[in-house]
Amino acid sequence: MSDRILNDQLRGKVMSAEEAAQFINNGDNVGISGFTGAGYPKALPKAIAEKAKEAHGRGEEFKINVFSGASTADDCDGVLAEANAINFRTPYNSDKTLRGQFNSGEAFYSDVHLSHLGQQVVQGFFGDMQVAIIEATKIKEDGAIVPSSAVGNNVEYVEAADKVIIEVNSWQSEDLEGMHDIYVPERLWDRKPFEITNVGDRIGETVHRIDPSKIVAVVETNEADRNAPFKAPDEVSEKIAANFLQFLEDEVAAGRLTYDNYIMQSGVGNVPNAVMAGLLDSKFENITAYTEVIQDGMLDLIDAGKMSTASATSFSLSPGAAQRMNENADFYNKHIILRPQAISNHPEIIRRVGLIATNGLIEADLFGNVNSTNVSGAKVMNGIGGSGDFTRNAYISSFITPSVAKDGAISCIVPFSSHIDHTEHDVMVIVTEQGYADLRGLAPRQRARKMIEIAHPDYRPLLEEYLERGEANGGHTPVDLPTAFEFHTRLAETGTMKK
Amino acid sequence: MSDRILNDQLRGKVMSAEEAAQFINNGDNVGISGFTGAGYPKALPKAIAEKAKEAHGRGEEFKINVFSGASTADDCDGVLAEANAINFRTPYNSDKTLRGQFNSGEAFYSDVHLSHLGQQVVQGFFGDMQVAIIEATKIKEDGAIVPSSAVGNNVEYVEAADKVIIEVNSWQSEDLEGMHDIYVPERLWDRKPFEITNVGDRIGETVHRIDPSKIVAVVETNEADRNAPFKAPDEVSEKIAANFLQFLEDEVAAGRLTYDNYIMQSGVGNVPNAVMAGLLDSKFENITAYTEVIQDGMLDLIDAGKMSTASATSFSLSPGAAQRMNENADFYNKHIILRPQAISNHPEIIRRVGLIATNGLIEADLFGNVNSTNVSGAKVMNGIGGSGDFTRNAYISSFITPSVAKDGAISCIVPFSSHIDHTEHDVMVIVTEQGYADLRGLAPRQRARKMIEIAHPDYRPLLEEYLERGEANGGHTPVDLPTAFEFHTRLAETGTMKK
Repeated sequence: MSDRILNDQLRGKVMSAEEAAQFINNGDNVGISGFTGAGYPKALPKAIAEKAKEAHGRGEEFKINVFSGASTADDCDGVLAEANAINFRTPYNSDKTLRGQFNSGEAFYSDVHLSHLGQQVVQGFFGDMQVAIIEATKIKEDGAIVPSSAVGNNVEYVEAADKVIIEVNSWQSEDLEGMHDIYVPERLWDRKPFEITNVGDRIGETVHRIDPSKIVAVVETNEADRNAPFKAPDEVSEKIAANFLQFLEDEVAAGRLTYDNYIMQSGVGNVPNAVMAGLLDSKFENITAYTEVIQDGMLDLIDAGKMSTASATSFSLSPGAAQRMNENADFYNKHIILRPQAISNHPEIIRRVGLIATNGLIEADLFGNVNSTNVSGAKVMNGIGGSGDFTRNAYISSFITPSVAKDGAISCIVPFSSHIDHTEHDVMVIVTEQGYADLRGLAPRQRARKMIEIAHPDYRPLLEEYLERGEANGGHTPVDLPTAFEFHTRLAETGTMKK
Repeated sequence: MSDRILNDQLRGKVMSAEEAAQFINNGDNVGISGFTGAGYPKALPKAIAEKAKEAHGRGEEFKINVFSGASTADDCDGVLAEANAINFRTPYNSDKTLRGQFNSGEAFYSDVHLSHLGQQVVQGFFGDMQVAIIEATKIKEDGAIVPSSAVGNNVEYVEAADKVIIEVNSWQSEDLEGMHDIYVPERLWDRKPFEITNVGDRIGETVHRIDPSKIVAVVETNEADRNAPFKAPDEVSEKIAANFLQFLEDEVAAGRLTYDNYIMQSGVGNVPNAVMAGLLDSKFENITAYTEVIQDGMLDLIDAGKMSTASATSFSLSPGAAQRMNENADFYNKHIILRPQAISNHPEIIRRVGLIATNGLIEADLFGNVNSTNVSGAKVMNGIGGSGDFTRNAYISSFITPSVAKDGAISCIVPFSSHIDHTEHDVMVIVTEQGYADLRGLAPRQRARKMIEIAHPDYRPLLEEYLERGEANGGHTPVDLPTAFEFHTRLAETGTMKK
């Protein structure tokens, strides 16, 4: 047995994943750990998938409802979806098979802000939760759980669930211990302020204390997190990053930011990593991050002494960075805090610290309404994730995107967003490789002119034409409803938004 | 001179509104008190309007940018708009003339969440603020200002402005003193938690301390707030109220609410007042309100012993209720707290206390996206106000609306909202006279079925037809972009959304 399970009582509950899967029944609400491909259970999902396939083979129903932190991986959402074992899923998913089931109507997905879900589960918005499956790095002598590479909604799921299953993953570095700040807040209607005023403040414990009588099984694993490689930044990403850094410089020049007060929130991906690479050579110092995911670029900023502290709920690292992280967890431990997502993404703290939110998008319209989730209004990608938590409460909210996608067939600036996740009230700055549009303090007619400036030149005349029709109609917001989705309908008919 | 001005230094600055208007120049950013027709300056706006008309008569430019708490009245926004004296306005307006100028393009309006604007002004998002004009009930011996019937953004505007003008309005009851809780928070990047855990907690002073060297003029007035009468609830309002109360009862039955933990936030209007009338006869006790506006119905609940405390930033009372309030301010003082809107609407506190948000809307679509601001996507009404602050952070967010408007020519449930202010992620429950749709935990396809159930029967077949087209297209969100706005285009062409 692994030397990671040091509590006698819980050593007595060690069993195989197949045995542990007995605790999961058709129709159960199952809360799992895991966030952005880190810290998700690796053994139970396969065992549950097998159980589902066997039930289906017998002509029986077997589907569960899965609640996570955020996205997991092929060996979690993927295997369950392949087995047709998921009825309902929330709050975020990036698995292709499962996404296909959402879009075909075979499975149901509810797109909930990451900071809200834990509370909603505890309050019973989804009914009772039967089981929580939580990955851990270690179980200590006293039974305390050292979480793994993501915290996510573990606190709330353990609190809400009748039964808890712990997966102890020996792949996770033991040096992760000390990095976590596990705070169990009071619940409605007895809540207190979160006493976090600086990104690095700690208010909880480094371990997760779980009532051992709730733990019905402990399963041993030794498997890597998802850890997808990042592409090297391309020319467009570098231009976007340069424009974003210019925006930061202009904020300093305007007296709204200082070189040592940049608190970063960043979505995940290649463009954000290009921004972080740009920051390495910038005048910004003592950068901190109050964000949901620790990415490669943040490790680089920490290594370079540019970033002092990064607070998040999870890692999303390339395989190389994951190895660097695991080998030097002891060092990164001093600079990184992993919190429950209800706290990493909490509006109270986000609003207080005064961060600059920077997220990607699918499309934005002339008035700054942003679609983060549904392609052509219909096909869901991954979900809103934490982008709403941060955008809505940031000191300055920004979005970064190439101006076009699919080799120019799709304009990311459209007349009317085909789905709206962030409204004009919440979107301040949009950055493309063409420049940045600062929408603050502007009326919709003025915003539209700024947005056309950062659209791809191929699409500017079409956007101008739309805007002229809207202006001819009159009104505060110059829309033309009959042609509002002409870009999207042309794309569906001809394969390009171009005329 | 009024016996409301007790400070010698400031008595020396008393002058007429015409004289005080010298401090306002063309192009100035002017912050004013006032929220929902209460507590706005009554004398300076007329004097500024006269000054503008004189300048225009000489062929000179004269327009200012006006920043308020929320809406004011005919004798504030109205006279300024009539004089073409407003270039830019934020964050909320209900004046018809000014609204017309937004929609014709003569004036610019930026629609900002009420809780955000103060911070944005202080941080310089709109440039410098030259003047703040603040209505007060009284100036005390030591120069402290007793605010009047609204607090709004007074703290931030006084902090940001170079010069301050105080209007002392003798119409306001002197018993308002003690009702306010004026807290001046730290600013970026040195903020602390707001130590408010219960609706009635006080963290500030009952007076507003303003650096006297900033005060350039004191003007005496004696004029009533706007105080529009409410209509008696009609049959539809009463049905909506009954359905909303049924929703509350069902939450209690489901264990998600108790009879003595209902914390109310309520938009302003006849339907909310009908809800409050319904609560008088309900099982709910010890109701509290953490909201932005104190309305007639709340006074009734306080009188009846049903509501213990109401926290807001302003009053919006009928003339009769305003008189009752002014005559019994000493009594209501024990039950009402008026805070700065940055605190009454702050996400930190809204999320913490766990309130049920209830606001009106213009239209909602099949997926729960809500339009609160722009009729047919183009013509702005009043703005988003605080509805986003509360909806986004509520324990449960609800909207209440008749299912149809304009004698049935307009369906308030449409295939695709022509403007989106609250997204599917934030809208949990929608109530019409037909019933309530509980959208929590549902995928868009499931939400649409719930929404059709609460639409007016005349529109259900048309909504079904749209949904079938959307479902035939496939996708997580069953939209049909080419016909998404068919209700709106039919309305524009034929005068009704009906076929």
